[in-house]
Amino acid sequence: MRLTPEQSAEIETARAAAHATRRPTVAPLEERLFLPVPVLDHGFVRVVDYMGDDAAVVQAARVSYGRGTRRALEDEGLIRYLMRHWHSTPFEMCEIKFHVKLPIFVARQWIRHRTASVNEYSARYSILDKDFYLPAPEHMARQSKDNRQGRAGVLEPETAARVFSLLRRDAEQAYADYEEMLGEEIGLARELARINLTLNTYTQWYWKTDLHNLFHFLRLRADPHAQYEIRAYAEAMLGLTEAWVPLSCKAFRDYRLGAVTFSAQMLACLKRMLAGARMTQEESGLSKREWAEFQAALEVSASS
Amino acid sequence: MRLTPEQSAEIETARAAAHATRRPTVAPLEERLFLPVPVLDHGFVRVVDYMGDDAAVVQAARVSYGRGTRRALEDEGLIRYLMRHWHSTPFEMCEIKFHVKLPIFVARQWIRHRTASVNEYSARYSILDKDFYLPAPEHMARQSKDNRQGRAGVLEPETAARVFSLLRRDAEQAYADYEEMLGEEIGLARELARINLTLNTYTQWYWKTDLHNLFHFLRLRADPHAQYEIRAYAEAMLGLTEAWVPLSCKAFRDYRLGAVTFSAQMLACLKRMLAGARMTQEESGLSKREWAEFQAALEVSASS
Amino acid sequence: MRLTPEQSAEIETARAAAHATRRPTVAPLEERLFLPVPVLDHGFVRVVDYMGDDAAVVQAARVSYGRGTRRALEDEGLIRYLMRHWHSTPFEMCEIKFHVKLPIFVARQWIRHRTASVNEYSARYSILDKDFYLPAPEHMARQSKDNRQGRAGVLEPETAARVFSLLRRDAEQAYADYEEMLGEEIGLARELARINLTLNTYTQWYWKTDLHNLFHFLRLRADPHAQYEIRAYAEAMLGLTEAWVPLSCKAFRDYRLGAVTFSAQMLACLKRMLAGARMTQEESGLSKREWAEFQAALEVSASS
Amino acid sequence: MRLTPEQSAEIETARAAAHATRRPTVAPLEERLFLPVPVLDHGFVRVVDYMGDDAAVVQAARVSYGRGTRRALEDEGLIRYLMRHWHSTPFEMCEIKFHVKLPIFVARQWIRHRTASVNEYSARYSILDKDFYLPAPEHMARQSKDNRQGRAGVLEPETAARVFSLLRRDAEQAYADYEEMLGEEIGLARELARINLTLNTYTQWYWKTDLHNLFHFLRLRADPHAQYEIRAYAEAMLGLTEAWVPLSCKAFRDYRLGAVTFSAQMLACLKRMLAGARMTQEESGLSKREWAEFQAALEVSASS
Repeated sequence: MRLTPEQSAEIETARAAAHATRRPTVAPLEERLFLPVPVLDHGFVRVVDYMGDDAAVVQAARVSYGRGTRRALEDEGLIRYLMRHWHSTPFEMCEIKFHVKLPIFVARQWIRHRTASVNEYSARYSILDKDFYLPAPEHMARQSKDNRQGRAGVLEPETAARVFSLLRRDAEQAYADYEEMLGEEIGLARELARINLTLNTYTQWYWKTDLHNLFHFLRLRADPHAQYEIRAYAEAMLGLTEAWVPLSCKAFRDYRLGAVTFSAQMLACLKRMLAGARMTQEESGLSKREWAEFQAALEVSASS
Repeated sequence: MRLTPEQSAEIETARAAAHATRRPTVAPLEERLFLPVPVLDHGFVRVVDYMGDDAAVVQAARVSYGRGTRRALEDEGLIRYLMRHWHSTPFEMCEIKFHVKLPIFVARQWIRHRTASVNEYSARYSILDKDFYLPAPEHMARQSKDNRQGRAGVLEPETAARVFSLLRRDAEQAYADYEEMLGEEIGLARELARINLTLNTYTQWYWKTDLHNLFHFLRLRADPHAQYEIRAYAEAMLGLTEAWVPLSCKAFRDYRLGAVTFSAQMLACLKRMLAGARMTQEESGLSKREWAEFQAALEVSASS
Repeated sequence: MRLTPEQSAEIETARAAAHATRRPTVAPLEERLFLPVPVLDHGFVRVVDYMGDDAAVVQAARVSYGRGTRRALEDEGLIRYLMRHWHSTPFEMCEIKFHVKLPIFVARQWIRHRTASVNEYSARYSILDKDFYLPAPEHMARQSKDNRQGRAGVLEPETAARVFSLLRRDAEQAYADYEEMLGEEIGLARELARINLTLNTYTQWYWKTDLHNLFHFLRLRADPHAQYEIRAYAEAMLGLTEAWVPLSCKAFRDYRLGAVTFSAQMLACLKRMLAGARMTQEESGLSKREWAEFQAALEVSASS
Repeated sequence: MRLTPEQSAEIETARAAAHATRRPTVAPLEERLFLPVPVLDHGFVRVVDYMGDDAAVVQAARVSYGRGTRRALEDEGLIRYLMRHWHSTPFEMCEIKFHVKLPIFVARQWIRHRTASVNEYSARYSILDKDFYLPAPEHMARQSKDNRQGRAGVLEPETAARVFSLLRRDAEQAYADYEEMLGEEIGLARELARINLTLNTYTQWYWKTDLHNLFHFLRLRADPHAQYEIRAYAEAMLGLTEAWVPLSCKAFRDYRLGAVTFSAQMLACLKRMLAGARMTQEESGLSKREWAEFQAALEVSASS
């Protein structure tokens, strides 16, 4: 159950509204406003409010750089310049508010981004729904041996089925006991009963941030090193951001997501290679790990 | 000169626009959108964008406290409850963006509020206008003898005139030399020439913050202890905030601006007084300064 | 198990060290440095580093208010003045770092305080210990009927025993399956296996903040309205803070923990009462809820 | 005048102190503690307190990544890994407090870094010293024609002398009138008199931040694009940071200061060049400006 009937009705009502405003308005985002984008098995993310657009970024940069800038740089060029040179304050002029339904273990990673405003459904006050995340077989990953945070290949079908049944059984048992503890007979305080729930239980929150901090979040969480489950949210949000601020989003893809940073040593090495030298790890002065990352940067991205 | 003709034309254009939006919209604020409210001799403050309304505060609180809350508390009661009990995150769901023209010494106080986004006109890139703040005679205050930060009464007319002419002469001389240094003949870098300007020179910025942090700003800067010049901005902003979120603003006035906090000792003293005791400073256990503040809280507000 | 033998040995080593420093040093806190203060059934909190003392607060205030301040106010008076008038930046000059072992549901409340630095033990990389929180019978509270977030009285012994056995059984089952999923045979990725754990499982983190933000945390979390489990941590931390900055801590108790804020309406009401009037809720203009809070402020604290 | 006799005496006293502490202590920084490093003509920066060291970064990372990390990576390798992969929270575990004397226009740029604690000398309460910054001839730069924020070559000696005399005359006149307005005869409030001062007047503050945010500050302000005057402070601070956390500082130099980020397009271009292609701006798909930056990255750093 992604949405309660009550929520679906609220969304219909909200989408039916049409107000007149003098504020900048973004038609492609209005089109998607309030609509939940499904994520994982029971989660979603949807935009419930926003402020500003690509032009607000430009306007903020122009108050900083003054009149003369207008002639020198067209809007898109200016946005790309700001992104490239890490001028972050103009991107702070845009704000967006999401409503998200997400498993608690994802919420725990997400909340580490401190520059945002959050209002979460409180299990001290209310009773959580019986919704928990169970990974699909194609996401049942094996622990990598050489990378402590990594996933290796996918589990065999029967092993995956075993994991699925363990996760489901424990979540259901925990929820059933949660209900028993809340019931008439026991009447335990909600704030105590909820401590029995498993970390894959779904929660909900409003999460509001500015465009600069949203990009920072997306850079870390839409990255292949991020855990798959939070990455699924980041990718859905990236799609919504594209509808909102297409020029800024393009610059973000080019100068952040698709960009590579080379250290002083890597840069020196690169120059020798451009001058025709064939380098080995030993000659490069890079550690084995850095050398591998260096090679990967020059390769992996080639195919992407 | 508050607005350049170019700025006035931009405001006209912006106000003429009418977009359709699904977002919550606040008619009384739309009415004032983009219009500059004059502050001091050459300054202004105007709202250039906003997101959310009183209902957004309520909605955020309801996601936290869950369905049950709806029945228990009406919207206004809930907003007042949140304000009274320092539940700040629901107020963070509303965002507002101001365009402000203000003297540099005011900007220096203002910027101490860190939880906001700022884009300031840069004198490294552009040339500042010849606008500087000169206090009106009724704001030419004498230094208080017993309160190091305070203003005592107003200067005599001739003394005020002397101050006015000193301030004007120095600002004009500094600006003339700024222009000379920037001129063809000398061609000094802008970032250096501007160091000659006086602190009453006007600058401009976009300043964007959420409602919780705006209230925090207003509590400190609309306070009688704040320097008159920044207070003038705070009061203009309070008026605009009232048009935007009337219920939240009323709660802010009652539980912050008009409220008083009594220390543990003051509270003990108060209870004895309510029980009929007549207290003196010695009996109260309060220091002279605290006793004076205690008396003032019970008196001064009586007349307000 | 609060500490592993490895951790105990590390603490011994750290406590044996004696370095010479020119930095301000606080003997009563050095005495307790690194020592864990037990909290709940398996948790602890301990100070692992600090910077500054009461004198650092005074020094920061004096750079702001200048030389003259020295004569006017003694150190303690100045600290009390700063606290009373919400001058927060001098308190930001002191910093403290805690190592905490705490249940995940407590960590989820704690992390809402954004102005702090956190490094948490990662269950993506490592395997969590088999430690979970089980409330003692005297903390097995019933859900309050009239206050949605409140606890009412304590459960009957047999009911408490039933809750205890449910919580223990589910936590143990979830942990056993966590181990199975991590085992050789299944080899599930750690970041996935951990989603099966219950919210009362213990985690650990370093948490570092400045004194101003620590007081803000303590004000909310050492408050009787805070959930008992996080309050237990706040109280242990308050004790350590007292050893560190006794003057600031005393001011905090008097002007925050033990203080009461009266709204504009309550203040008006109070003045009439001091003038001899007997007020009723109807006459006061306060809502029922506010009137109850007003009465409580004048009563409850009387006995405390 | 960099230091008042009173300040010099305080420094002597502070340096004479020797306390015993269990906290991590860094001998090379203790050696420099409290000593002012001269910056510009009258300014300085000095470290007045600190917390943590390179080992604190490692310790924080290890609580996150757990026991296993120990074997895999030595301390230096771990610090380099953290820096390379933008894992910022372990660097937040170290804290440093500076006392800085700096011109107001530098303070205005500096304060834009919001994640720090500041206590500034207040000209509302106290009287500012007669110290103002006058650039040395070798820093009297001409405005660049093609780069709006840039400095071109240095002014001719006579032109520089003219600028010097204008700046000095205006600062002195403004200060003399400031004194007159504060004098017995006029007695203007300090908070008003100070608005007459020029932006090159010196102020002072305590500035405290964590190592992650210090590095962020240094990356932007020790950069060649930063205005010379703030860069002079950044470079002095970088020297002090090197004495404090040498391993982290080395990683910062390699992966931030000396590093280069290539966009997706630049990376594609680079790969073709490594494969032997000779690229032109047209073929590259880069704008002229980007192409110039790309060329510069592969050239300029070659000589540095």
